[in-house]
Amino acid sequence: MEVTRRNFKECLDTVYSAIEEADFLAIDGEFSGISDGPNVSALTNGLDTPEERYTKLKKHSMDFLLFQFGLCTFKYDQTRSKYIIKPFNFYVFPKPFNRTSPDIKFICQSSSIDFLASQGFDFNKVFCNGIPYLNQEEEAQLREQTEERRNQHANGIGTPSYISPSSSKGPAHVPEEHKVFINRVMFQRKLIYQTLNWKFPKGLHVETIETERKERYIQVSKVDEEERKKREQQKLEREQEELNDAVGFSRVIHAISKSAKLVVGHNMLLDVMHTIHQFYCPLPEDLPDFKEVTMCVFPRLLDTKLMASTQPFKEQITNTSLAELEKQLKESPFRSPQVETAEGFPSYDTAQEQLHEAGYDAYITGLCFISMANYLGSFLTPPKAYISSRSKLIEPFFNKLFLMRIIDIPYLNITGPDLQPKRDHVLYVTFPKEWKTSDLYQLFSAFGNIQVSWIDDTSAFVSLSQTDQVQIAMNTSRYAESYRIRTYAEYIQGKQDKEKSGQTAKTWGEDGWVKPHYTTSTTSSGFGFPRYACTEMYCIFQQDSLAAYVPPALVGRGVNGFTEMTFVLSSPYTGAESTSTLFEVPEVW
Amino acid sequence: MEVTRRNFKECLDTVYSAIEEADFLAIDGEFSGISDGPNVSALTNGLDTPEERYTKLKKHSMDFLLFQFGLCTFKYDQTRSKYIIKPFNFYVFPKPFNRTSPDIKFICQSSSIDFLASQGFDFNKVFCNGIPYLNQEEEAQLREQTEERRNQHANGIGTPSYISPSSSKGPAHVPEEHKVFINRVMFQRKLIYQTLNWKFPKGLHVETIETERKERYIQVSKVDEEERKKREQQKLEREQEELNDAVGFSRVIHAISKSAKLVVGHNMLLDVMHTIHQFYCPLPEDLPDFKEVTMCVFPRLLDTKLMASTQPFKEQITNTSLAELEKQLKESPFRSPQVETAEGFPSYDTAQEQLHEAGYDAYITGLCFISMANYLGSFLTPPKAYISSRSKLIEPFFNKLFLMRIIDIPYLNITGPDLQPKRDHVLYVTFPKEWKTSDLYQLFSAFGNIQVSWIDDTSAFVSLSQTDQVQIAMNTSRYAESYRIRTYAEYIQGKQDKEKSGQTAKTWGEDGWVKPHYTTSTTSSGFGFPRYACTEMYCIFQQDSLAAYVPPALVGRGVNGFTEMTFVLSSPYTGAESTSTLFEVPEVW
Repeated sequence: MEVTRRNFKECLDTVYSAIEEADFLAIDGEFSGISDGPNVSALTNGLDTPEERYTKLKKHSMDFLLFQFGLCTFKYDQTRSKYIIKPFNFYVFPKPFNRTSPDIKFICQSSSIDFLASQGFDFNKVFCNGIPYLNQEEEAQLREQTEERRNQHANGIGTPSYISPSSSKGPAHVPEEHKVFINRVMFQRKLIYQTLNWKFPKGLHVETIETERKERYIQVSKVDEEERKKREQQKLEREQEELNDAVGFSRVIHAISKSAKLVVGHNMLLDVMHTIHQFYCPLPEDLPDFKEVTMCVFPRLLDTKLMASTQPFKEQITNTSLAELEKQLKESPFRSPQVETAEGFPSYDTAQEQLHEAGYDAYITGLCFISMANYLGSFLTPPKAYISSRSKLIEPFFNKLFLMRIIDIPYLNITGPDLQPKRDHVLYVTFPKEWKTSDLYQLFSAFGNIQVSWIDDTSAFVSLSQTDQVQIAMNTSRYAESYRIRTYAEYIQGKQDKEKSGQTAKTWGEDGWVKPHYTTSTTSSGFGFPRYACTEMYCIFQQDSLAAYVPPALVGRGVNGFTEMTFVLSSPYTGAESTSTLFEVPEVW
Repeated sequence: MEVTRRNFKECLDTVYSAIEEADFLAIDGEFSGISDGPNVSALTNGLDTPEERYTKLKKHSMDFLLFQFGLCTFKYDQTRSKYIIKPFNFYVFPKPFNRTSPDIKFICQSSSIDFLASQGFDFNKVFCNGIPYLNQEEEAQLREQTEERRNQHANGIGTPSYISPSSSKGPAHVPEEHKVFINRVMFQRKLIYQTLNWKFPKGLHVETIETERKERYIQVSKVDEEERKKREQQKLEREQEELNDAVGFSRVIHAISKSAKLVVGHNMLLDVMHTIHQFYCPLPEDLPDFKEVTMCVFPRLLDTKLMASTQPFKEQITNTSLAELEKQLKESPFRSPQVETAEGFPSYDTAQEQLHEAGYDAYITGLCFISMANYLGSFLTPPKAYISSRSKLIEPFFNKLFLMRIIDIPYLNITGPDLQPKRDHVLYVTFPKEWKTSDLYQLFSAFGNIQVSWIDDTSAFVSLSQTDQVQIAMNTSRYAESYRIRTYAEYIQGKQDKEKSGQTAKTWGEDGWVKPHYTTSTTSSGFGFPRYACTEMYCIFQQDSLAAYVPPALVGRGVNGFTEMTFVLSSPYTGAESTSTLFEVPEVW
């Protein structure tokens, strides 16, 4: 269902009840751009820490506009063994509510706009008919303003708008040639209001009306007392309605949030950040605060890209892009879920791709989730074909958002501390801005295969294949003048010192977060093997036996052949508590 | 005529010949916003200097996109005594030309977008079918790249794109799981090219083709030598054409520039700045350099808003907004010009307003110019009904661009130094950010009428009605703690000192500009009277008699009743030379 400013109000109840009855919700957003600073490969450095990534996305992605929001609700019909879906495609635009409301500026990135244009995106629907919205602070301000105006009106005090309008500190400069005219108009308006109040203290209802075309006029109606009260009441209700109209699309997000339903998205970190930023509050400075806010707005999230990149799916799925994932999940060993579009909703046809329409993408995301959830059921004894979104089987994937292109940290952990892989084979290299990748290959030619992750024009991470090469590289670079090498640990230390001197640093401990447990990786693996300092294990408890998912990076990489390993077991049921345990690793891993 | 990417190439010759044959051109631009910083009243402070205004507009307006460009050409048909017009409405969008071309980011201001939407603006035409463009530097870079590629190809050297692509310093990070695939594809491409060259050194033409959907494939054709050469030639021509396509809309601006025709606009400073910024080069740091660039791009400009605000029009025209101006110039003493739309062009109907479509606004602007020019002919003996755009009567209005809302400087003088009004009745006041206009009225209540021009949250200009009050205000404020008062001269001095210490300062003298001559205003006028240090007079030489326009601000303000006055006469024919002269002022002034 396509929802714009034109039909938003009449659709709202349908949206509310769809959310209310749903088993889970799938969402997707389309934005006016991705990065206003570095190009995407610099924005998503393979060795970013979660903090760095959050800071970069916050700085370089939040000035774009989320202008299409897809919501698809999924409700399981037990009797017919199929999901009933209700897809919504909302067009969103920050149309200024009145003359004093914030005049939002947003950035467009021509490549993103051009891409959406090539997909048949309708920009007129966004810019001409997009649903307005307010974040919570703006909403509170507007409610306060309305309340104030109402009180002043009740007390007979007019707003002294010619002295201090709320939009600016002074009245707009009136050009010399218009002063006489403006003064005459102001006088006239004042005169009309005063004269009417004085001559007809009871028998009149006076109101300023603004038309759609911003023309303002005074409407004077002759009324008896009963009618006057009725009019006042109507005016009050109209004001309330206008206020709700201004809050607009944010009401949908509030409903999603309030429902506390599972919200599924694909590669959803940016969607979550934009949604909070646009409809709730400016994003917090630090990652831990962001996690906290996210848990308030979306208490239960699931990222299908992260799920598809994790065991037991990782081995089966070669490409986790949404379109490819959807295709692969139609094939064995997976099964397409049975879904039916609810009556009154236009049905999507997955054979006719409508990718990058947010409503369609949300729908596809939901399908992927169902297929993968049901696949988990095949591991049970006896196997189950349908796995509810409330099943414990799915919980290990909750609140872990896929981190694009980070080599050794697959996800952002919204409900706890993040993985802290050891990066003792990584060097931080600074050099003249003329250097190219080939210069770095040249420099490290003695160390065999290396991997370069550019940070900016004059710095990059260089991953060596062997940790013991690090000291050799450091030694040989000691007298170099054109470049400089630091270990990854020194780089992080330097960053932290800088932050501390800037007095903006917060550590996990200070924030009440539990510090992760450490175990040292015992295998000396080859190039490309991520070294986890903290290994976390996903577990499925099934009656008395314990099936385990190990992090994707560990599977098939140096683990094969071991029959015993030490893990830090992070139980999804006991929260932050962690215990060390000895565990039998089946040969198949 | 509506021009988009779809029909741009086929329209281009029509555009070129319309410019070539025209007597003058009218232009107008529509932007995605006005100010990304202060609101418009702070952006256009009534006491800005021209330098300050330029700096503010450059800083806060240039990140918006000029996305619709209106051009209307006017050619006078002597035999039929009417103008033949050709209106064009270009949709413009920086569609990235290829994978290495700049990915432009631009800002949208929701109030501007909403305004255009309410006027029926078609955003899909811009974003889906806008004509691309390059500025001169980008064009040069692209030509160089193409040339380089061609030479490498000729010498048999492939671009080592896997080592240093021009878009970034290193190859994009390839996720671990895709590495095998990518390497295989790269190897396959290389293998095909190499094997073909080795096996069929002569009989084949091999080329990489990219489709509209960005799919790339290798096209291999079996050809004889003659055919091969033909194909090579075709490829060369195709490359050249693609390059011209990328330069796109900039070619129209180049044609306008090259024609050196009179270019008319309404309130055109922002149009000129955007046009140069988008299609020529980033705007220079300093105003004098901007003036120089402007004269290169548009050697002859005329701003109808400035013309309408100047004698002899000022007295007749109460509202200089484009829509109102057009209406008033249809009434006596003005006359609507006779115009006819050229065959094959859709004709505009001024009764059915299509304001804020750039093509229509350009058309209306041209009409206003013709009406006003012809009106000047009525002052001649004998009066002339038609005044050509080449007439000397119009020259006094050349290259003076209207300055919005500056109290005492009506225009930016593109071909010389700007007016330097005395501002010795102006105070620069700084105060706590809680202060409102009413606090300033309170503070200066002893001094009668004041005028406040806000600068930012904590500072404003306060204009007193009498210059001799300035010292009193300064004295009484000496021990004030919450606020601080400086004279305007001190404020300017402070700014200059700051600039000098920043080593970015340039003075007029250093830049080779002639310093303006000074005469002291002899009248001690009341509040609101702009005090010119340099008074400039517009002159119309007509045979032996001399008709004069005095600057609008002087007319009817303290001049009435005088029969003699001293002016600095700045002749439009002798350029920067100025002479003092005694002059008889008619009683009617």
